[in-house]
Amino acid sequence: MSGWDRFATLATSFTHDELSYASATHAPADSPKDKDKETPILRIAGEARSRGYELVCVPLTTARWKERWADMCILAGEGGGGEGEREKTVEAERRAERWRMSPSFLREEVTMSRLDEAEGTIALISDWLQLDARDDWVRHDSEIALRQELAYASYLNIHTAILPPPRHRAHVTSYARAINACLKSVPYMQLSIRLPIYDPPSTSTSSVSTPQLVVSDLPVLPRKSKAKKAPEDELNATWEMWDIVRSVCDYNPRLTLTLDLTPPLPTTLGVLSKWTAEPVQHIFLPASTFIANTKGYPVLPKGTQSFVRQSMAHRPIIIMSDVRSGTHSKGGESAYSQYIRHLEKSSPVVQAALKAGTVENFAQGYQDYLQAPLQPLMDNLQSITYQTFERDPVKYRNYEEAIYNALVEWPASDRIVICVAGAGRGPLVARSLLAIQRSRRPAFVYAVEKNPNAFVTLQNRQEMEWGSGVQLIYGDMRSIEIPEQADILVSELLGSFGDNELSPECLDGAMRFLKADGISIPCSYTAHLAPLQSSKLFNETRMNKDPSKSAETPYVVMFQNVDILSADGGGLGGRCGPQTQECWEFEHPRKDGVVDDRGLPITNSHNTRSAKLTFHIPHAGVLHGLAGYFEAVLYKGVGLSIHPQHKDRVSKDMLSWFPLFFPFKDPLYLPSNSELQVSIWRLTNERQVWYEWYAESFLPVFSAPLPGGEDHKTPTSSHDPFFASTTTHVAVPSPLIDAVDSSFSPVSGGGGREEGGRGCS
Amino acid sequence: MSGWDRFATLATSFTHDELSYASATHAPADSPKDKDKETPILRIAGEARSRGYELVCVPLTTARWKERWADMCILAGEGGGGEGEREKTVEAERRAERWRMSPSFLREEVTMSRLDEAEGTIALISDWLQLDARDDWVRHDSEIALRQELAYASYLNIHTAILPPPRHRAHVTSYARAINACLKSVPYMQLSIRLPIYDPPSTSTSSVSTPQLVVSDLPVLPRKSKAKKAPEDELNATWEMWDIVRSVCDYNPRLTLTLDLTPPLPTTLGVLSKWTAEPVQHIFLPASTFIANTKGYPVLPKGTQSFVRQSMAHRPIIIMSDVRSGTHSKGGESAYSQYIRHLEKSSPVVQAALKAGTVENFAQGYQDYLQAPLQPLMDNLQSITYQTFERDPVKYRNYEEAIYNALVEWPASDRIVICVAGAGRGPLVARSLLAIQRSRRPAFVYAVEKNPNAFVTLQNRQEMEWGSGVQLIYGDMRSIEIPEQADILVSELLGSFGDNELSPECLDGAMRFLKADGISIPCSYTAHLAPLQSSKLFNETRMNKDPSKSAETPYVVMFQNVDILSADGGGLGGRCGPQTQECWEFEHPRKDGVVDDRGLPITNSHNTRSAKLTFHIPHAGVLHGLAGYFEAVLYKGVGLSIHPQHKDRVSKDMLSWFPLFFPFKDPLYLPSNSELQVSIWRLTNERQVWYEWYAESFLPVFSAPLPGGEDHKTPTSSHDPFFASTTTHVAVPSPLIDAVDSSFSPVSGGGGREEGGRGCS
Repeated sequence: MSGWDRFATLATSFTHDELSYASATHAPADSPKDKDKETPILRIAGEARSRGYELVCVPLTTARWKERWADMCILAGEGGGGEGEREKTVEAERRAERWRMSPSFLREEVTMSRLDEAEGTIALISDWLQLDARDDWVRHDSEIALRQELAYASYLNIHTAILPPPRHRAHVTSYARAINACLKSVPYMQLSIRLPIYDPPSTSTSSVSTPQLVVSDLPVLPRKSKAKKAPEDELNATWEMWDIVRSVCDYNPRLTLTLDLTPPLPTTLGVLSKWTAEPVQHIFLPASTFIANTKGYPVLPKGTQSFVRQSMAHRPIIIMSDVRSGTHSKGGESAYSQYIRHLEKSSPVVQAALKAGTVENFAQGYQDYLQAPLQPLMDNLQSITYQTFERDPVKYRNYEEAIYNALVEWPASDRIVICVAGAGRGPLVARSLLAIQRSRRPAFVYAVEKNPNAFVTLQNRQEMEWGSGVQLIYGDMRSIEIPEQADILVSELLGSFGDNELSPECLDGAMRFLKADGISIPCSYTAHLAPLQSSKLFNETRMNKDPSKSAETPYVVMFQNVDILSADGGGLGGRCGPQTQECWEFEHPRKDGVVDDRGLPITNSHNTRSAKLTFHIPHAGVLHGLAGYFEAVLYKGVGLSIHPQHKDRVSKDMLSWFPLFFPFKDPLYLPSNSELQVSIWRLTNERQVWYEWYAESFLPVFSAPLPGGEDHKTPTSSHDPFFASTTTHVAVPSPLIDAVDSSFSPVSGGGGREEGGRGCS
Repeated sequence: MSGWDRFATLATSFTHDELSYASATHAPADSPKDKDKETPILRIAGEARSRGYELVCVPLTTARWKERWADMCILAGEGGGGEGEREKTVEAERRAERWRMSPSFLREEVTMSRLDEAEGTIALISDWLQLDARDDWVRHDSEIALRQELAYASYLNIHTAILPPPRHRAHVTSYARAINACLKSVPYMQLSIRLPIYDPPSTSTSSVSTPQLVVSDLPVLPRKSKAKKAPEDELNATWEMWDIVRSVCDYNPRLTLTLDLTPPLPTTLGVLSKWTAEPVQHIFLPASTFIANTKGYPVLPKGTQSFVRQSMAHRPIIIMSDVRSGTHSKGGESAYSQYIRHLEKSSPVVQAALKAGTVENFAQGYQDYLQAPLQPLMDNLQSITYQTFERDPVKYRNYEEAIYNALVEWPASDRIVICVAGAGRGPLVARSLLAIQRSRRPAFVYAVEKNPNAFVTLQNRQEMEWGSGVQLIYGDMRSIEIPEQADILVSELLGSFGDNELSPECLDGAMRFLKADGISIPCSYTAHLAPLQSSKLFNETRMNKDPSKSAETPYVVMFQNVDILSADGGGLGGRCGPQTQECWEFEHPRKDGVVDDRGLPITNSHNTRSAKLTFHIPHAGVLHGLAGYFEAVLYKGVGLSIHPQHKDRVSKDMLSWFPLFFPFKDPLYLPSNSELQVSIWRLTNERQVWYEWYAESFLPVFSAPLPGGEDHKTPTSSHDPFFASTTTHVAVPSPLIDAVDSSFSPVSGGGGREEGGRGCS
């Protein structure tokens, strides 16, 4: 793996002791050219870079600052005592007030003062600050100190600051409020919340007892010596803290996470998978997290290993800390980095991304990017766009196979007529001819295309390649006539959600070309949904120009920073369906439809659909949208699928379609073990087709007495027969949404169609 | 009670039978002048008006329309059968398709066709339409029919249409989606959802069996013959249906409710009180709801009586139906209306509103109106504004009492010095003089005022009324000096939330005038909160010009269309506080504060506050904001209070302050028996003071096995010691909010202050 395709960036963090030692042993640079050794920080940062770290993390402040702050802000808070005591307190309070009025550092209270020292440096904010202390004054003064530190870091042009973790669930809203205020007051800088993945107290790197122990009446960090494994609850609780912080900060894109992996992780991803949907920018890995392998070299525990491998997809900055203190007997400092590079190389996501021919490789650069939908009917596509899709190695192979099978199984006949409806630059015509050749059946191909530019390419290919076995017809399949009816109608009008590029409506028009006993390839397709969480996509949706409209249309997206919230089955009485659920189906030719004299449907009512799906949500999460997929049966056993659980069986490595993303305007919190009901409609009027979608969350409630209050009755019955007597309605989001106002006309020629983008364009 | 101050508007609805009878017996108008008798509808509407009804409700369509619709849309849906049967089905389907393409009525399918017939008429949409049928086609065609009916009503210039109720909890999202589409397609018209207050099936007025019974596989309206009383669950379920409909319709202000009170109501309001927060425009009361009193006259059951009395506050339209069929033996048709007028007259809210001197009377016209806050420090108030507040009969009486008590209890002294800080046009100066007179203590009054215009009035009053016992001082209390320090400092700087007009900051400046052992009137004040629901206030907040800003500032509001969601105590372990809870307190003079040479605080840090409150929510509801109140101790037992549970004891009929309303940007659904945690902060920097607030909902979770799914563990433990092992986090709203950017400067003279409006201005 060469440098440019690395997924992880390595950083190392310095301790206060290392900085002190560097200062104490600092000798002025040997020559005036050694600019980068002029100060202790420059020297040790330079040394770290020469050992392969791309970034360094430096504590912004020194112990002197902590002493002064505690002296002012804790002593003043103490109060009481004798007269002398009292005078000292008043003096401390006076100093504190003067500081609050105009917060500033003394030189020896900060570690850096030069721009070159701060370059490429991540600042570690004082980790003893308690923005969520129980004590009002400690909270208040911690916030002033935090702003002071961030303002100083900003002065030094530092781009990223890592903030101390929230510690108290009860006061996390105060923590969150302070962070939000900082995001507003400090421009540009990324604020990254350091968050121990569970059990926060265990991970304090500060060896000195922290100020809170002086002031709090309650031991703030009640560290029980626990069993090693994190219970799921604790992992959930960590995420819940984060969820509150980022909600209060309104999903500010400058707010990121530094996941502190000090405690060992469980070996199954389960609840951990939700971190894939969060902006984890840094992973903090102290030497103490590593265990020694049989040879004494440092390796990570199994659960942490697989989590780090998985995280590579998000190209994290991995901060190695305390790696120069000789925690492990073998390998020295470089062993830790080498091990991380080993995990990177052996990460399945990295391997998939680097292997040619995979969707992951094909999609590089497109992850989580909201694509403007293609409109192949309204807009005439460019040749380059056709070319991109024609390169799909799987899609056309399956089409050929389907046509071949249909021909082979076709009853004896002198001449089988194939009609390609929407021929584009001709890939399906070519595949039809190959299938005819292989099947040795007598057949003739009509190719219908309405894009005048692509029609030139078709004429070219007919002359150069196809000859007399093919007849080209120029025009819209919904209005033209063809010389004779076909036995087999072949089309490729499918979108990421199946019907979302108006395949049903177009084929309604083309069915006039098909004999009564003819077949359509594809003969049916289904649309599928799963609920997802992704702060990334939520923010991308909001950043669209018109925020009120941006959440009202589905997008084509290659998912990465996304977590699917549902799990198979579950729920009370097992009424929840699988992780991904089918909404509806379309079949061609359609049965028993009433048509007008020209063979066209009178209205489009028969193409409306609706579905109500119930999902089991095992772990608490936030619903940001729905993932949409399709499956199609081309002919009997041959199909196409982007359904996450089926695609590898049906059409592995097919590249043409990324999933559809149906966004919600407002996030909806889903508790652990809740049920999510999703309603989705495919709607139509005389000009348009669009989707609307809606979600409700239900939490199973058990009959149990509620102590206290006048109201002892638990709501155990409901009107809803479906939900019988076991659930209560929990929360309703707002999004009922119209899609873009694209025009659609099933009877006249010039109409547009619904949003239809899919893969890369 | 004269006509103009009536609270209820009476309407009557006609049945199909009455309309048929009117048509059958219709004789052309006697003379050309009898324009209003030209058609049967005009005649019976005219007769109804002459009997005292201000409005009439008329079914928009006839039985003919229902027949045709069922013939097309139900027959076509049936399918199957023999060849002849099949042909009939195809023919029906063809007719249905032609109708769907271009929906229209035949003359005999509608009841009205002239503008004058529709004038003052509320249209009843076909009540057999099933927008939430199980059957896709019935739903689809019901929606087309609904749009057709609304379009026709709109053509006739009808302003209000009453829609059939949702019937299926499982498909209410489909119902809601259809209503939302209608709101968008029909401009101006009010759509009012008819909603039986519980158990929808019992209230169908249509005597013919409805189409759904033909198509649904499941009996849609399983009417059990129940005990008379509605269980709370059913009342909650009705509200839940409504909540989904209006949420999907995004709180469209043209969407209202027609509460159908056919079933008898429980006698305690309890869960019914939530309807006070909803846009109940009509109350539907059929004769069958009335019971006969001992004399045989119609009266309402107790529960319904008190609900109707309570509803008068919202000035409902009461629709009397079936009142001409002789249901009751005595009184005839007029007995029903007379009874409603009797309830109106005896309604406590009507009585309070009509009685001079009550807050309700004073506030007429101001209910639920978001007031632009007063800025008495930044803006110099107008004389008329002072006059309004000076008329408060209670506030100044209590001030005088407090000053009197303070004087009487004052230690022996030659001369007691009173300083009125912020004298305005002089009401507190006058009251001080009265108190001095009554107490017979030797005292002198300084009156400080910074409004140059009011200072002219003060000079006038000194010359005309006060004489030498008063010395006027012009200037800002935060910067001027006065000749001698005072024993008693009197001020009236309180806002609706106590400290929200910056009383703490102003008094910090004025404390320089007070002797070390002096007292301040008021000597302390507290701020209080309660969570509230109100679609009205939610919409009012959103309608402000800049929607992103409009939810970020508190407003002064006289609440009416509002329901307080909390109840006293309750919760697991009784950890929830009372319905209204105290946030924080300010005391004057402040103790042990560090000040600078001039006696002013160095920073404003000591005036920051924060509170975390836990409320018990007995019935499901939607949180739209917080109600803010204050209480003040003027001197010992004398105070001022707008706290809803205390105000009548402390300062009954005080008019000067309406409550403060802290809005939330996004509604938060609160389940029954949940707990609401509210965080609120009073924050400050060198220029400003503002509030931020945040709410989280928790639902108690019991340990019980969860059947099904891989995940059998109920989350029973949490990190949070406060919430111990019994709750799970349910939902997080977004609102963390800065108040308006008003400038505040505690040390210099020219600063502005925070929003400070309160009562009428």
